[in-house]
Amino acid sequence: MLIYGKEVREATKEKVKRIAQNKPLSLAVVQVGDEAASGAYINGMKNFGQDIGIPVTVFNYPATISEAELIREIKKLNQSPQITGIMIQKPLPAHMRDDVVVNSLDYRKDVEGIHNFNLGKIINREAGVRPSTPKAVISMLKAHNVPLEGARVTILGRSSILGSPLALMLMAENATVTVCHTRTRNLIDEIRRADIVVAAMGQMNFVTADMVREDTVIIDAGINFDENGKMFGDVHAEAKQKAKMASAVPGGIGVITVAELFDNLTLLGE
Amino acid sequence: MLIYGKEVREATKEKVKRIAQNKPLSLAVVQVGDEAASGAYINGMKNFGQDIGIPVTVFNYPATISEAELIREIKKLNQSPQITGIMIQKPLPAHMRDDVVVNSLDYRKDVEGIHNFNLGKIINREAGVRPSTPKAVISMLKAHNVPLEGARVTILGRSSILGSPLALMLMAENATVTVCHTRTRNLIDEIRRADIVVAAMGQMNFVTADMVREDTVIIDAGINFDENGKMFGDVHAEAKQKAKMASAVPGGIGVITVAELFDNLTLLGE
Repeated sequence: MLIYGKEVREATKEKVKRIAQNKPLSLAVVQVGDEAASGAYINGMKNFGQDIGIPVTVFNYPATISEAELIREIKKLNQSPQITGIMIQKPLPAHMRDDVVVNSLDYRKDVEGIHNFNLGKIINREAGVRPSTPKAVISMLKAHNVPLEGARVTILGRSSILGSPLALMLMAENATVTVCHTRTRNLIDEIRRADIVVAAMGQMNFVTADMVREDTVIIDAGINFDENGKMFGDVHAEAKQKAKMASAVPGGIGVITVAELFDNLTLLGE
Repeated sequence: MLIYGKEVREATKEKVKRIAQNKPLSLAVVQVGDEAASGAYINGMKNFGQDIGIPVTVFNYPATISEAELIREIKKLNQSPQITGIMIQKPLPAHMRDDVVVNSLDYRKDVEGIHNFNLGKIINREAGVRPSTPKAVISMLKAHNVPLEGARVTILGRSSILGSPLALMLMAENATVTVCHTRTRNLIDEIRRADIVVAAMGQMNFVTADMVREDTVIIDAGINFDENGKMFGDVHAEAKQKAKMASAVPGGIGVITVAELFDNLTLLGE
């Protein structure tokens, strides 16, 4: 059975909208250069903000701006009382270090939950913002009443924005979590023994029907494009059909992440 | 075969000693109250420092000091150019919040690697200090030439100072890591399938011989005391005898952690 993200997105949207009525929220998007793909993503954010009465302001800088100059601009936004959250659109130009730029944010305005200080809170199990994709994965599972306590979860991919924080967040939900990656031996065993598989390795249709059980729950967080520009996840359609439940691509995790980012906006400021 | 920590400790000690000859290092230990157990630990640190020419200064405050006052004192140490690293001895009195006190440290002086900003670096795979017990576990494994790449590791315990950061650190070493805890179902299966088991749940002799294979490598990071004050790990002696290799308690991981803390001291300052 395919599951979709739209209802989760709408529920979160309503929740954020209600909070925004009593709390002044305002999002700044830092964009360097003007890549088309990031423009589309930013438009999605602007529309989302408009729907719920939260101003989204794009600060666009030329692709030639130096790292030091960009950081000076970010520090101005850190200090602006009108702005309560800041997102830094990736990818940044190759002459910049992502970690240095991200950590120049005031962590209290880090709406993506990717500043080192906020990531550390995940290990320490402190409340706060969380990276939006792992947040979307957990919202999707909970919205579909998938039990997490004691569940055996296999995560495919160990990235700093998805696999690694998600592992910690699912542990905090009392799941038993295994993280797999390119060096994992017997990967198929690790997938087959899972109650829940989260695919996030960025390989089109990698997980096939023979790897999953009929009672497996699949979250497909992959975003891949074929030569015609059609979007595919990391899990093959036949595997999804066989499984008990599987998130669609497109229309699954991807449509929830923007809502989770705005949910983070409501949590910032401490 | 039992393995011990002494050689690892001595090797790290020599390494730190060499670095200290060219880099001014100085450790401050913040002690609140005067519990006997923490006094013994602090004496161990002082002796270690003395052996390698690194001054260790204890700043002792009465158990009645308020959280706000303690934080003011820590901020003075943050600013002191004579001090390059600060350790906050735990447990703190019950009227203090550990996380607030720890995060009042300048993260550049956080010799324990437990400030949120430094923990976040583990998720982001940035170089830097790491909590000393998981560091000791990895040093022990490497010193005994246990292959980590592709190894299936089961960690028992998900604490913020050991299980959780260790999971991320072993993933970075290309191990396939599963973290188990009180809510894990089929815990025995998870232990039996591991190439390496790290026991860190704080239950005396919990892991028994029937749970391990003859080719299992066991790291016992448990510290428990029986009614006579004798120290025991989390793994039963018979399990250790059966396994390919198992770290002793006492004399295993515990004797390495102080050395790892001093190793962190050499990494601070950026």
